[in-house]
This record gives sequence, C-alpha cells and structure tokens, in this order.
Amino acid sequence: MANSSAWSAAVPSTPLLKDELDIVIPTIRNLDFLEMWRPFFQPYHLIIVQDGDPNKTINVPEGFDYELYNRNDINRILGPKANCISFKDSACRCFGYMVSKKKYIYTIDDDCFVAKDPSGKDINALKQHIENLLTPSTPHFFNTLYDPYREGADFVRGYPFSLREGTSTAVSHGLWLNIPDYDAPTQLVKPLERNTRYVDAVLTIPKGTLFPMCGMNLAFNRELIGPAMYFGLMGDGQPIGRYDDMWAGWCVKVICDHLGLGVKTGLPYIWHSKASNPFVNLKKEYKGIFWQEEIIPFFQSAVISKDSTTVQKCYIELSKQVREKLGKIDPYFNKLADGMVTWIEAWDELNPPKLVVEVTNGPAKANLAINSIVLQFVCMAVFVVDNNLLGRITYGKV
Amino acid sequence: MANSSAWSAAVPSTPLLKDELDIVIPTIRNLDFLEMWRPFFQPYHLIIVQDGDPNKTINVPEGFDYELYNRNDINRILGPKANCISFKDSACRCFGYMVSKKKYIYTIDDDCFVAKDPSGKDINALKQHIENLLTPSTPHFFNTLYDPYREGADFVRGYPFSLREGTSTAVSHGLWLNIPDYDAPTQLVKPLERNTRYVDAVLTIPKGTLFPMCGMNLAFNRELIGPAMYFGLMGDGQPIGRYDDMWAGWCVKVICDHLGLGVKTGLPYIWHSKASNPFVNLKKEYKGIFWQEEIIPFFQSAVISKDSTTVQKCYIELSKQVREKLGKIDPYFNKLADGMVTWIEAWDELNPPKLVVEVTNGPAKANLAINSIVLQFVCMAVFVVDNNLLGRITYGKV
Repeated sequence: MANSSAWSAAVPSTPLLKDELDIVIPTIRNLDFLEMWRPFFQPYHLIIVQDGDPNKTINVPEGFDYELYNRNDINRILGPKANCISFKDSACRCFGYMVSKKKYIYTIDDDCFVAKDPSGKDINALKQHIENLLTPSTPHFFNTLYDPYREGADFVRGYPFSLREGTSTAVSHGLWLNIPDYDAPTQLVKPLERNTRYVDAVLTIPKGTLFPMCGMNLAFNRELIGPAMYFGLMGDGQPIGRYDDMWAGWCVKVICDHLGLGVKTGLPYIWHSKASNPFVNLKKEYKGIFWQEEIIPFFQSAVISKDSTTVQKCYIELSKQVREKLGKIDPYFNKLADGMVTWIEAWDELNPPKLVVEVTNGPAKANLAINSIVLQFVCMAVFVVDNNLLGRITYGKV
Repeated sequence: MANSSAWSAAVPSTPLLKDELDIVIPTIRNLDFLEMWRPFFQPYHLIIVQDGDPNKTINVPEGFDYELYNRNDINRILGPKANCISFKDSACRCFGYMVSKKKYIYTIDDDCFVAKDPSGKDINALKQHIENLLTPSTPHFFNTLYDPYREGADFVRGYPFSLREGTSTAVSHGLWLNIPDYDAPTQLVKPLERNTRYVDAVLTIPKGTLFPMCGMNLAFNRELIGPAMYFGLMGDGQPIGRYDDMWAGWCVKVICDHLGLGVKTGLPYIWHSKASNPFVNLKKEYKGIFWQEEIIPFFQSAVISKDSTTVQKCYIELSKQVREKLGKIDPYFNKLADGMVTWIEAWDELNPPKLVVEVTNGPAKANLAINSIVLQFVCMAVFVVDNNLLGRITYGKV
C-alpha cells in the first residue's frame, strides 16, 4: 500500500497530462506566487486572465509557458459577446476555460500557496486533482471508506457490485488549509479561525446533493463539463460578487447529476494565505445571502429534460428556468440568464464542434479531428494519399 | 482551537450521558476485549446478548455493570415473538436495543479494540460517538469542510443560513482501522489489504443517499430511530448472513430521510483485529450479493407516506412494501416482512408509550413518566399526597 502523502509530494518524472491540461489563473498582480509552484506547474501551459486595468503589466516569473489575456483581448476576441465575461471580479477566469484547447483545466487563485501534508511534505495539488479526475466517481451510493479507487481503499461490504465501475469524473474540488473559505458574516464572527485539520479523504458528492463549489483550487474535465463552468455576472456593474463559483457549482452539479457525471471533493489542499476583507466581502455578498435562500431550492428541484443530452443543451434549458423562476426575485437574474445564453454562443464559436474522419483501410491508419470548414480539403488530401481508397470514412461530432 | 486528537484521548472526569446510554455487545465468548476498553466503558451499563449455546458461561471482566441475555432469556421475555430475533448471528444484538431503557445505544463487536490516532493517543470511540449524536446533522446541503459543528470548523461560504441549524442526529456510524469491512469477494481478492488511513472527518450522509451501515462500531439515538434498528432474520435457519446491519442501514436511512433526521459517518475509528473467514463469509453472503442489486433500487425509490409520522408507522409501512416488492425475489422476504412486523410488536410491548403526569401545583413539583396501566394508581397517589390539589394534571405521549 502506498502512502498517499508520499504520492502527493513526489514530483513525477513525466508530468501527468502534460499536454492535455491548462492552468487558468485570474489575477490583477505580478505572479510571484508561481515561484513556489514551479516544481509542479512549470511543465504545464498557463492561461492568465488579467483582470482590471489592461494597461498594467503583469510580471510572470521566467520559465513558464503562458498566454495572457487582458480586458482588451477579451473584447477583441468575443466582440459584443464579451459582456458575458465579468470585469473586476475573479469570475473573469472562465474566459480562460473558453479559450483553452485542452481536455482538462486546473484553476487556482494567486493567493494560494503550496501546503504541506501532516508529514511535512509539499503537496503537489495538481497531481492529486489529476488522480481525482482520472479515476471514476461514485455518485449513486456512498462508500464509507471514501474514494474506493485510492490506493489502500476499496468498496466496503454491502456496496452493490453493479455500481463499482463508477461514473466518469467531471470535477475535482480541492480544499484549503489556513484561511478557510468563509462568508463575510462568519469571517466577522470568527476572525481568527484557521483551518488546521488535514482530512486525508477524497469523496464523491452524491447525486441529488448540492455543494458550495469554491473556485480557488478547482479542476475539471473541460470536454465533459466545460460549457457549464460559467462564473456568471459578478463585480463591476453587477449587484453581487463572490457568488461566481457558487453559481457555477450549482449549475455544474445539476447538469452532472443529469448526465451521470461525478463530482469529487476533498484532497488536495492548498495553503490559502490571506483572508480577504470581511467588510468589503459583506458588501459584495449581502444580496447573495438573501438570494441563495431561494436559488438553492430552485436548483434542488430543477429537472432537466431527457432531450438535453449535451452540456450546452442542459445549460440553455437551465438558463430558461433561471429566467422563468428566478427572474421574479430580481431583474438581475434575467440579465444573468442572458449572460448564460451568450456564454454558450461564445463557447461554441471558440470551440466549434469537431468532426472525426477515420480512415480504416488507407495506407496508414489516420484519425483526424478537424473543423467542418476544412473537411473538404482533408477528404481531398486523404484521397490524394491513396487513390485506391476503399476504406470506410466515418465522421461525427466528438 | 482544540485538537480533536487530544479530545478523543482524554478520559472525561464526568462521562457524558453516563445514565443515558447502554453499550450493547453480541458475543459467543468471554469478553476479555473489555479490558482494553475499561477506561472508556466502565462508567456505562452494558447489555450483553449471548449468541449460540445458552448453557455456556460468558465471563465478563470484573467491575463492569451489565445485564446478560442468552437465547433462553430472549425466548422467555418475547415468547412466540422471539422468532424475530436471529440466532447464531450477530444480528441478535438488536434484542439489546429493545430491552434497553436508555435514550442512546452504542454497539460494538467483541473483536474490536481501542485504536490510536495519528499522534499515538488512544481513541475514546464512545466519546466521539456521543459528540456526533449530540451535535446536529446537515443532510440537506453538503459542507465541504465536513461536520461544521466540530471545533475549528464551520459552514463555508455559500452554505444557506436557513439550513445552519441542522437536523437532529439519529445515527453515528464509526469506522475501522486495520481490517476493513470488506465483503467476501473483496477479502478473497485482497487478503492483505489493511486500512491504515486515518481520515479526521465526520460528515452527514446527504438526504436521499444510501450507505452500507456496518454494525461493528455504531451508535444511535434510540428515542429517535430505535424501532427501525432491526437487524433482520439472519444466521440459523435463514438463507443469508452478514446483511443484518446492511438491512438495518437501508431501512434506517430511508426513515431518517422521511422524518428529517441525520445520519453521520466517519470518526471514531476502532481497531478491528481479525478478518473473518472469507470462505465462510461467501457462503453467508452469496445470496445477498445477488439480492442487493434489487434491494438497493427498491430502497432508493421507496416513498413513505406523510401519514407515517412515527418510526413505528414508517417501519410497518416499509414492511408492507418489502412484502409487495421484494417478495417476488424470494419467499425469504415475506418471512422478513413478518419479522419486521413482529419486531415492532415486540418493541412496543417492551417499550409501551409513556404518559407524563405533570403536577404543577402539588406539595412538590412532580414529573412522572408512567405506563398507562398504572395511571389510575399514580393519580390516586397524587391525590392522597395532596387532598387539596388544585394543580393542573396533564398527560400525553412522550
């Protein structure tokens, strides 16, 4: 049995998913925090979403491979659709999910540092997220020894065998040592509370159960759930802040439940260094504190129709329900529903449906993922390569 | 912030719930294992249910306060209703729940010893169970920092304030270090697997989610859920074994969900010393392995009517559904449904509804919990004590 702590601390010789994962970081300042993450993050590509003043220069430590988008870039790339991306709020990070071309996303806040496990070793948070995402989830029945796919664990007596294959994991929600992710009232009441409890567990949040998803230390499978990871309209010009990740979490969980996907929470921990100002937070949150009392029952009872078989369709359906049922609370929710639709339009524009041309009897097996626009040319090319092609050419959305 | 390990290891000067909790132990052997538990268990009353040959003498270490029931006692006390209590199976323990007069029960197997926390301190399992039972549960929304009522923890951002009161906790399900509670197939495949992972968490199993409840290290509030803690018909003369606690767990969870009660799992750990024989286990379990594939969907979709407002009513309703829907699988389930009804009849016989006579203006305040049979006599007595009684006499079920 391997010790999980030893696992987390080891730097893999070949980083897992090196070319299949982007790290998305929203920021308004120089990214010195990356120095501490260098051993774990440097092999990966970063997508930096610069919030606030686009004329400010953000310094990125040397040696990191990154692309950076400021507000001017977002406006240029999305045109009028840029209004679905929040400004002056870390909700802007979801633009990074949209422009990524990778299968997996890890997103982290720039005030989050490397935490230590109880043995004192540095925790490679990204590696644990990847393990969480690459192993199945168990949303249909609770396993009392937590994630049965971790080393040294399994399904306990009484766990139905038909459910032991699990479901694909769409989301891995990581936690925080030191400053816990409390709301403003709790911050005000418990200014000195620090999270010192290292809980060595990963678990699936059961189907039908909502949870407060924090965007500080979060990974997901973009292909499975990306279009639902919209962080809403927050910050500048909006009546609310600090509910961006919560909104995404509620939508994501309802859609994961509908599509039979899993959401895990628990390990890995990051070290959250600094509590944000509770007075500023209260101002941002206070409408949310009222609204969530109605929003949560709405999501708890939301039903998505069987016809919605893709994340996009589910999300559009949910946007209609938001307009219909939450619009009564405040006109903001109609604007948010518009934002949800715009987000999906923008997502599809930047991520057009792919076609796969599979040549099974050509000179060499070829499996090409291409845009519809270039389909003709590729087909021509394939025929040029092999004039006597008798193979099956199939295509379909992937 | 107190360190939870320090808490668990401390022997309380005045043991919590000393006169309100019974420890129920099913056994076929001398109870030497109690020596190790002496610092934690000795203040409490034990109910020992002796399984197997009633002529065998079970030695109990000196200094423990206990009552012991063997099969002859069970037959004498329950008469023909004794057929609902299993023989030659640890399922017989539920007889102890029935004869207890206390509010809380802790039940433990006699091959379970005191475990150590990561700091090396002995874990007072009973104390942690009591803490779990005396603090609320949160079945309606998942808290990512686990039990918000533990020291150093709270509700995280995005947790609705209206749900922070929680619900009453009916069940505390503890875990096992060393030998994990695996089924026979998993035991056969992983004979050397040991549980070495100490997960420092207690959490509420969300509403609508079933779990495999193990009876090895289990506590519950008898007043809230006792009548549903029936461990079924197992062992001698039955086609199945090792599903006693599972059966109870499914019934209990469905009824807790219906009545708005909470079920917690996680801490405390006990040290499970010895793996049972996987070949013997396979023989006991194999029908259960098939049947659970139908039983679990049955419980997942079971709906209890609004009229069932007591555990007894819920349980009788569930017994009817078992007969109707599971009777098709095997005639055993009709017998089990009969057992469920008999169990409730026996429970009510041993635990008659109480009446409270409250004398508010007598010579001294008196609050008497009595059986209806003796109501007349008590009323007479009260009037004899105070001929001029003008006080209010109220009575009602409690």
